Amino acid sequence: MKIVIAPDSFKGSLTALEAAQAIEKGVKKAMPEAKTVLVPVADGGEGTADSLVAATKGRMVDVVVKGPLLEPVKAAYGILGDKETCVIEMATASGLNLISLERRNPMVTSTYGTGELIKTALDDGIRNFILAIGGSATNDGGIGMLQALGIKLLYSDGNPAEEGACDLSRIAEIDDSGFDSRIADAQFLIATDVQNPLVGLNGASYVFGPQKGATPEMVRILDRRLTHWADLIEAKTGIRLHDKPGAGAAGGIGGAFQAFFPAATKRGIDIVIEYTKLREKLNGAHCVFTGEGQTDFQTASGKTPMGVAEEAKTCGVSPVFVLAGSIGKGIDQLYEHGIQSVHSIINAPMTLEEAIARGSELLEQTAEQVMRTSLAPLPKRRGK
Amino acid sequence: MKIVIAPDSFKGSLTALEAAQAIEKGVKKAMPEAKTVLVPVADGGEGTADSLVAATKGRMVDVVVKGPLLEPVKAAYGILGDKETCVIEMATASGLNLISLERRNPMVTSTYGTGELIKTALDDGIRNFILAIGGSATNDGGIGMLQALGIKLLYSDGNPAEEGACDLSRIAEIDDSGFDSRIADAQFLIATDVQNPLVGLNGASYVFGPQKGATPEMVRILDRRLTHWADLIEAKTGIRLHDKPGAGAAGGIGGAFQAFFPAATKRGIDIVIEYTKLREKLNGAHCVFTGEGQTDFQTASGKTPMGVAEEAKTCGVSPVFVLAGSIGKGIDQLYEHGIQSVHSIINAPMTLEEAIARGSELLEQTAEQVMRTSLAPLPKRRGK
Repeated sequence: MKIVIAPDSFKGSLTALEAAQAIEKGVKKAMPEAKTVLVPVADGGEGTADSLVAATKGRMVDVVVKGPLLEPVKAAYGILGDKETCVIEMATASGLNLISLERRNPMVTSTYGTGELIKTALDDGIRNFILAIGGSATNDGGIGMLQALGIKLLYSDGNPAEEGACDLSRIAEIDDSGFDSRIADAQFLIATDVQNPLVGLNGASYVFGPQKGATPEMVRILDRRLTHWADLIEAKTGIRLHDKPGAGAAGGIGGAFQAFFPAATKRGIDIVIEYTKLREKLNGAHCVFTGEGQTDFQTASGKTPMGVAEEAKTCGVSPVFVLAGSIGKGIDQLYEHGIQSVHSIINAPMTLEEAIARGSELLEQTAEQVMRTSLAPLPKRRGK
Repeated sequence: MKIVIAPDSFKGSLTALEAAQAIEKGVKKAMPEAKTVLVPVADGGEGTADSLVAATKGRMVDVVVKGPLLEPVKAAYGILGDKETCVIEMATASGLNLISLERRNPMVTSTYGTGELIKTALDDGIRNFILAIGGSATNDGGIGMLQALGIKLLYSDGNPAEEGACDLSRIAEIDDSGFDSRIADAQFLIATDVQNPLVGLNGASYVFGPQKGATPEMVRILDRRLTHWADLIEAKTGIRLHDKPGAGAAGGIGGAFQAFFPAATKRGIDIVIEYTKLREKLNGAHCVFTGEGQTDFQTASGKTPMGVAEEAKTCGVSPVFVLAGSIGKGIDQLYEHGIQSVHSIINAPMTLEEAIARGSELLEQTAEQVMRTSLAPLPKRRGK
């Protein structure tokens, strides 16, 4: 029996590979002779670069850049096995997780480091990019990134704004004369499923600002700044970002890619499924295990278990079992997408900290029990 | 498809019937057309009387008696549907749960109330008894019960000891001239699987005294008292309780039954399985759900899931799925007894209090997921 094991990471507890290995141990306790295929997956969030690098036998490269508050951080990007493609998780340079709770302030955080990562890869000859833009600490419309790549923002007196987040509403003009010319010859695939426009009640500031630390007052200011920024871009390029779907992704960096880069967008999970050759690996599989930290109604929006189940359904492979750190509300809607059942790995009252510390053991035990359950004969399947 | 649902109670959260109903809801969400048979089970512990009364369409009777510290408590016993059998859970009169932590002192707690329950039932014409002796607060060798039924303990000056626990080592003689004569014409089935002797390191005081509140000093004193008590009984009846298996059950009340009553012993779960006609109900079943509060290595010692699985195995019925509040260590040994898999109902990090409050909803969800998992086709069962 061939069993495909394709989980996401369990945030803070297990990488996708560690999760797959724990599930494998449990599956083999139930069925020692099972043939297992491990496929660590990601959906554009944390772990995407690892997943693609592992799948293509590439390598990770460490780069010191400016963090969200312009302090030095050790970021990284992946160079895939083709030696031509660079995968950048913007969160490694501009991520919310890089700054402590009390320092989270999207009025001042900058995407400058993300731009530095792109520049470093361009310097290395890379012209093919995958940008995973989840988990950002920023709401700067991507201006930090653009500054790192040569764009200048000018005040009405002609002087350039300093690097990093600034009061965008005081900017009078965009000077792109120094914009890195290599970008026009490169390709950028943006891994995101966020469809929000740049501004307004459904835009970057209102929808995502609060979770990055913005107070209601800050949200209003940020939205006005991004509106002005969109005006400047429209004047410069003719492109209207205000209501453009996806322009609001990652604090507006989505719009920066749309306006200044040769960029396309694709769901993170679909990019990973393609590079990991999941479809090929699903061929002839008898069942699939997938999983993630929390499974709830949000899983249906392109999270790993959904993507894996959809791919399995397309190949005619079933059942697909989801193992989750925790189960939230709204999982009933997952079944029609090809998910057979959902199981939490928590096996007793415990704190989140304990669950995180014991993730591997708990995941292994749950995988074993689910495998044992699925192996039990029920006459219904004999046609009774 | 016929599905038998036979769980124990989930202590502090759900009665066995409530647990069965929650599992039924989950099973039917996965398979609306399933035919379900609910069998609330107990293993001689809390809920045994309810289980037998429900199974035989009997009734519960409230009786005010002396509690473990001789204060009035509202206890109860069950009269089975045959109107002839009385089921007494000694814990309703002499149970540990009746007294707060700081008042738990096996030097002074008494089984007097348990004796009063027996007397009341005898007064009602009952001559057939089932005594569930789990959960006691006592270590008095059953002398309280015997006093309530007419036995006197005499000091060397011939004066009788007061009712309740006393310094047994000062007792010189047992006066059974007033022992309730109806007892000789009655039958007593003691529901227990405890095999400990009365005294010594493996006896009542050393093994069970601490969990009832005994300090090491108290344990020594209690063991000396019970040794003397065994000497008195041997002198009176010729029966040696010191090393007799089962004499140490429930603080030594086991020995009192062995010496003074027409008593037999049987595993609580086996008594309940017989009265609930579980074997009959298992006939033609396609799978079984059982469960309990905590499943671990102790489950193998005659706890409900073990008893239910053994009965199912005897009938050739499988699979048997266990749904537990929490999973502890040592569950691997359960598989050879006919248990297919074990699942915790906890679905996220949470406190015990929250788990208890949400027991029904969590049990329903887990039952649904296990049923969904078991219904998924796996080619192995088609012989591939």
